[in-house]
Amino acid sequence: MTRLPPPTLRARYDAVRAHSLALAAPLSAEDQCVQPMPDASPTKWHLAHTTWFFETLVLAPLLPGHRPHEPRWAPLFNSYYEALGPRHPRPQRGLLTRPALAEVHAWRAVVDAGVHRLLDLAQDDAALRERAEPLLALGLQHEQQHQELILTDILYTLAQNPLAPALRAGPPPDVAAAPEGWVAHPGGAVPIGHAGPGFAFDNETPRHEAHLQPVALGRRLVTNAEYQAFVDDGGYRRAALWLSDGWAAVQQHGWTGPLHWRDDGMAFGLHGLQPRAPQAPVCHLSFYEAAAYAEWAGARLPTEFEWEALAPELAQADDQAWQWTRSSYDPYPRYRPWAGAVGEYNGKFMVGQIVLRGGSCATPPGHARRSYRNFFPPAARWQFSGLRLAKDL
Amino acid sequence: MTRLPPPTLRARYDAVRAHSLALAAPLSAEDQCVQPMPDASPTKWHLAHTTWFFETLVLAPLLPGHRPHEPRWAPLFNSYYEALGPRHPRPQRGLLTRPALAEVHAWRAVVDAGVHRLLDLAQDDAALRERAEPLLALGLQHEQQHQELILTDILYTLAQNPLAPALRAGPPPDVAAAPEGWVAHPGGAVPIGHAGPGFAFDNETPRHEAHLQPVALGRRLVTNAEYQAFVDDGGYRRAALWLSDGWAAVQQHGWTGPLHWRDDGMAFGLHGLQPRAPQAPVCHLSFYEAAAYAEWAGARLPTEFEWEALAPELAQADDQAWQWTRSSYDPYPRYRPWAGAVGEYNGKFMVGQIVLRGGSCATPPGHARRSYRNFFPPAARWQFSGLRLAKDL
Amino acid sequence: MTRLPPPTLRARYDAVRAHSLALAAPLSAEDQCVQPMPDASPTKWHLAHTTWFFETLVLAPLLPGHRPHEPRWAPLFNSYYEALGPRHPRPQRGLLTRPALAEVHAWRAVVDAGVHRLLDLAQDDAALRERAEPLLALGLQHEQQHQELILTDILYTLAQNPLAPALRAGPPPDVAAAPEGWVAHPGGAVPIGHAGPGFAFDNETPRHEAHLQPVALGRRLVTNAEYQAFVDDGGYRRAALWLSDGWAAVQQHGWTGPLHWRDDGMAFGLHGLQPRAPQAPVCHLSFYEAAAYAEWAGARLPTEFEWEALAPELAQADDQAWQWTRSSYDPYPRYRPWAGAVGEYNGKFMVGQIVLRGGSCATPPGHARRSYRNFFPPAARWQFSGLRLAKDL
Amino acid sequence: MTRLPPPTLRARYDAVRAHSLALAAPLSAEDQCVQPMPDASPTKWHLAHTTWFFETLVLAPLLPGHRPHEPRWAPLFNSYYEALGPRHPRPQRGLLTRPALAEVHAWRAVVDAGVHRLLDLAQDDAALRERAEPLLALGLQHEQQHQELILTDILYTLAQNPLAPALRAGPPPDVAAAPEGWVAHPGGAVPIGHAGPGFAFDNETPRHEAHLQPVALGRRLVTNAEYQAFVDDGGYRRAALWLSDGWAAVQQHGWTGPLHWRDDGMAFGLHGLQPRAPQAPVCHLSFYEAAAYAEWAGARLPTEFEWEALAPELAQADDQAWQWTRSSYDPYPRYRPWAGAVGEYNGKFMVGQIVLRGGSCATPPGHARRSYRNFFPPAARWQFSGLRLAKDL
Repeated sequence: MTRLPPPTLRARYDAVRAHSLALAAPLSAEDQCVQPMPDASPTKWHLAHTTWFFETLVLAPLLPGHRPHEPRWAPLFNSYYEALGPRHPRPQRGLLTRPALAEVHAWRAVVDAGVHRLLDLAQDDAALRERAEPLLALGLQHEQQHQELILTDILYTLAQNPLAPALRAGPPPDVAAAPEGWVAHPGGAVPIGHAGPGFAFDNETPRHEAHLQPVALGRRLVTNAEYQAFVDDGGYRRAALWLSDGWAAVQQHGWTGPLHWRDDGMAFGLHGLQPRAPQAPVCHLSFYEAAAYAEWAGARLPTEFEWEALAPELAQADDQAWQWTRSSYDPYPRYRPWAGAVGEYNGKFMVGQIVLRGGSCATPPGHARRSYRNFFPPAARWQFSGLRLAKDL
Repeated sequence: MTRLPPPTLRARYDAVRAHSLALAAPLSAEDQCVQPMPDASPTKWHLAHTTWFFETLVLAPLLPGHRPHEPRWAPLFNSYYEALGPRHPRPQRGLLTRPALAEVHAWRAVVDAGVHRLLDLAQDDAALRERAEPLLALGLQHEQQHQELILTDILYTLAQNPLAPALRAGPPPDVAAAPEGWVAHPGGAVPIGHAGPGFAFDNETPRHEAHLQPVALGRRLVTNAEYQAFVDDGGYRRAALWLSDGWAAVQQHGWTGPLHWRDDGMAFGLHGLQPRAPQAPVCHLSFYEAAAYAEWAGARLPTEFEWEALAPELAQADDQAWQWTRSSYDPYPRYRPWAGAVGEYNGKFMVGQIVLRGGSCATPPGHARRSYRNFFPPAARWQFSGLRLAKDL
Repeated sequence: MTRLPPPTLRARYDAVRAHSLALAAPLSAEDQCVQPMPDASPTKWHLAHTTWFFETLVLAPLLPGHRPHEPRWAPLFNSYYEALGPRHPRPQRGLLTRPALAEVHAWRAVVDAGVHRLLDLAQDDAALRERAEPLLALGLQHEQQHQELILTDILYTLAQNPLAPALRAGPPPDVAAAPEGWVAHPGGAVPIGHAGPGFAFDNETPRHEAHLQPVALGRRLVTNAEYQAFVDDGGYRRAALWLSDGWAAVQQHGWTGPLHWRDDGMAFGLHGLQPRAPQAPVCHLSFYEAAAYAEWAGARLPTEFEWEALAPELAQADDQAWQWTRSSYDPYPRYRPWAGAVGEYNGKFMVGQIVLRGGSCATPPGHARRSYRNFFPPAARWQFSGLRLAKDL
Repeated sequence: MTRLPPPTLRARYDAVRAHSLALAAPLSAEDQCVQPMPDASPTKWHLAHTTWFFETLVLAPLLPGHRPHEPRWAPLFNSYYEALGPRHPRPQRGLLTRPALAEVHAWRAVVDAGVHRLLDLAQDDAALRERAEPLLALGLQHEQQHQELILTDILYTLAQNPLAPALRAGPPPDVAAAPEGWVAHPGGAVPIGHAGPGFAFDNETPRHEAHLQPVALGRRLVTNAEYQAFVDDGGYRRAALWLSDGWAAVQQHGWTGPLHWRDDGMAFGLHGLQPRAPQAPVCHLSFYEAAAYAEWAGARLPTEFEWEALAPELAQADDQAWQWTRSSYDPYPRYRPWAGAVGEYNGKFMVGQIVLRGGSCATPPGHARRSYRNFFPPAARWQFSGLRLAKDL
């Protein structure tokens, strides 16, 4: 029997929900309210949006007698679901001083109680259980995605403050140097996409074959020291290394190094301003920078299929940073979005974005997997994004 | 002997400083942190900036042994004083979640203690007193100006929230209908500018003569009911009534009525969404709208000189809203800015702005005076700004 | 008898119309078609717009049996008259490759013939003459204003071309050094505004008194050499010299000298790239730069009233450049715009602009006069605009 | 022996160059000078740029004693080759009234003579021939690409003119209705990319295998009548049909139908305003609109591999419009750009763009081929772009 037993699901639900609050705990209500740019949402908004998700997509259809805690909040915390009604403009999320953080906390508790009630009912109702479990699983995966965003977004927020406040006290943990070298593949068909069991997003399906050419993939991510050599070699001043849009971005924004690097050898991170660790993976790169570095290094970025076939089992050093691939975020053959409102989860974003693979220091443990397709526009730098090299054999 | 006795100045200092905190008291730390547009600053920023003003312009030069409470905060809360060092970009004031509101409160207390110490020293030191009193007087006038901005800016902030939260509970106070009619002047020379005694800003000086043509000035401000008639008569659709820039603003922003008016007869204000009182002065107009209304009404806006010569003693109904004049904010003959850093207070803004006269429901009692020159760009609507008519005789 | 005899008016009409074509004669059809920024219109557009003006405001109401040459062109060449129907968007005037230049020339001839016919009829019809003459006079003044714009706009167009093509061959004419010194006024009432006889725009009326303080006005305009000293003294790097908006413009646009100055001591002008003549009036300044220079020089800009009372009779050196005053473009007391569509000519622009007085090397001879009020926004630099100093006595 | 005999190459050169001039012949110098948006270049610029290409990439390295006709023009007509020196900003190409059209014509003649000389020399110099022929072939392909752009860009230019001038007289040619139906593929490996002989761009290589799922491809393009049904069914108002970026574009730009469609059933095209032919392929769609239509039709867009494997031999009806595919413009496996400056031709644009396949009514006969990869950003609509449906089997 493969379904998760209800007690386990409840424990997992409680753990995930508690983790969101734990991430926000070092932050004041002020910290959690503001929005530094349209792409980066306030912490409080993340806490509320994930709660809205459970209330709207799980409790509303499944819990008998459910009534929304505060119907006027729905448009404020609907992110992008056209099927679920109007939405507050994204760039103005940071103006929502009301509901207050304490009210959002109270809402979380109410919704958590509702989910508990639903799980109780489902224990004796197999039909309900069958409907509830996948939606709850999705809600938890969704909340984990926002846990990563809570960290990337608050990092960007704090980075705007000239006082450079640290989210976390003390120095960052040491990252052990990862083994160098390459993993080779002779070419040929490889299976791509989620094989199950367990949860996967619709964009990881259907499972199908891709056909590789002979290729080698770097065993570890490019490091700060390696990237520094690219910078020192004039990487940001040599147009020939860059894609056209990338070079335009360098000129327009005046990029001279990764986001959060300072001129004095320091970098701003979750632990505030800290010296850059030479052996740690370089981070906060755009796709353009990753591609330019690879060109400079005489290599290239791997396709997402090469990555999926060859990447080492995910280990600490690897999941310090998501890894830009050389694959645009296109649908897999015969891909269909999920039915219903959750069909808007992934499919409608399949244009203008680049696939990242792996995971990062901000990804909740156990969330990512080999078939996981993260995606961001090529100019995005505020995520924990780095790169791994590939080369043709 | 004309100087204010130190105990009185101390009491006035304490009262003004306490009033700022009282205005902010109904607001959460979240409310006080965010910034809805570049022109409207966060409440916390106002509380900190006024404190920076006393610390930098009074304590630093005058209090022996003074050291700034936290030197790293200076750039954050310097508004526009080029002579006083670098400044945090204005549009990013709302990202300053640190220092926290509680830290700003503590800073205020430290600076208040410093001012008290300075006043104690000045009691026995006439030379110190002579230097300290004008600067303290300026600091208090400055803080009162920011008290008005605290209200206008938080009103704009709360107005962005679809939940329409009210700053103040209950309905707004009734505004007694003001007497109608006109005050006439036969034309000729009138004195303009501050005559003393008492405080005045440099832009109200030097006192000089202006020469009026025969004119009549409305006894009261244009009301909501009167402005509604203008709207109902197609005022926002008739280009012939508007200045060219005003008509462009109407098209660009889609204006169909004053800021904060809703379609259902309600208006958003300090007491939240409330029915519009027909006899209350219309408010939250741009200069363009005020001028278009006057054209529609077969009248015109008064010059600032006509206003200064003819406006009734300031009474409750009048000071509900600042009154746009038909005068650009140009320097008076032989005007010179104050010496030193405070020379940046007014003079450098004398281009591209329009003079408003009177006062508003947000102006601290006793702050405005007949010679007071308020000024804003012609498109500004987030202040409490209305109009009073004039006509040639 | 004061009216102009019809033959004279016809001759003047023919001369003014021919002068427009003469200005455009050195330019190709390509040169005359493009638009380098929204404020600067194509030469062909000016030729067509002035023709539209005569057709629409003179022939249509006055010439029996008149029919517009091509009704579909009206929206293309209506500049800003809301009362006269829709208008092609100003920033897209440069896309009007049709009607072709030759078609516009043909239109000019047709309209000129119509005006001739009207003048013939008016010779024997006093009532018609009385209506036609003021409108024709206005049309000619209007065309002369556009003659100046033809030059300023084509100069800006050619300046965008890296080949730096010259409108006129050979070196520019020498400008004789003007006499230095000051003209003083003891203060008191001075008459302001047009006194007649002869043409004046509505914005120069009504004539009224202004009251001056004791003042001196520079006998000549500030020269290139004097302005160079300001630049060399760090004028563009010292915030204290600038109005706030001016300093912002310096930062935003990276201004380091007047428009069209090059780093090598050359300047681009109607004669192409030429060495800057030290004794020639400095030109292509914004109001902000003029005001900053005056501050640096320990002087100030004159008000438009001081200028009108004290400026020397207009001589060659003086009319090399319009002179920014310290007066915002506000209406004169009891000003009323002309009746009808021509009421849009001046009045609706009376906000956000600064008055310039004098004339320039591009102003048609005989067009300007002492009471003439030119006006542009304070950041405008593409006109021939300089300054004359004033100082309090 | 496979090389083209020089006489044939010369004849082909002459024919291609003459065709560019023939396309421009109906246009005035004014028409050929202006630029309606940054993406659409002036006709004259295309004529000059293609000439610069031959001069810089063929004559300069290969013709003994060659000197550029006018070195100062190089930056004006270098499009995007970083390796070949500075470039005039793209959005300002329309301000280049100089060099005049006649000067560009003369330059073309000079370069043509140089190419003739080179071909003469190459007739007796095999080594020179080997170097010259591929570069000349590239130059001709390049010029043909710009021939298509001459048409798309001038169409966009003329469309901005309210007079709606037609490039070509008379009604457009009838487009025979194409046969309906589907072409099926059972799935499996298909060869992709250029197989030779003959010219191909680097982005069509290397030839490799792709693996299809069972699929059917529409035999003909979607027609105006079919697209009208989508519009009539509320296609532009139903968010669920659209990719997220597409829906945002619909809102932002107010799209309600293809570019150049008018409300009255007419469409603007090379023959001016004409009734829309129901059976003609719909045209001037963005990728977003093509994808939304496919969703509405219960189908999808084909991948570029499906297209290459299954598209019918190119026939008249098919090549009325390029066909958006569901493939981002990513590099083929082991793709490397050409060496040298021409390496900037394709590779550096491989991000943020979508592949189109087929050809259009503006494509020069013989230019496109089955492996040809056209590409534009997903929002582009000014090209002749339509769609062909696909469906999973």
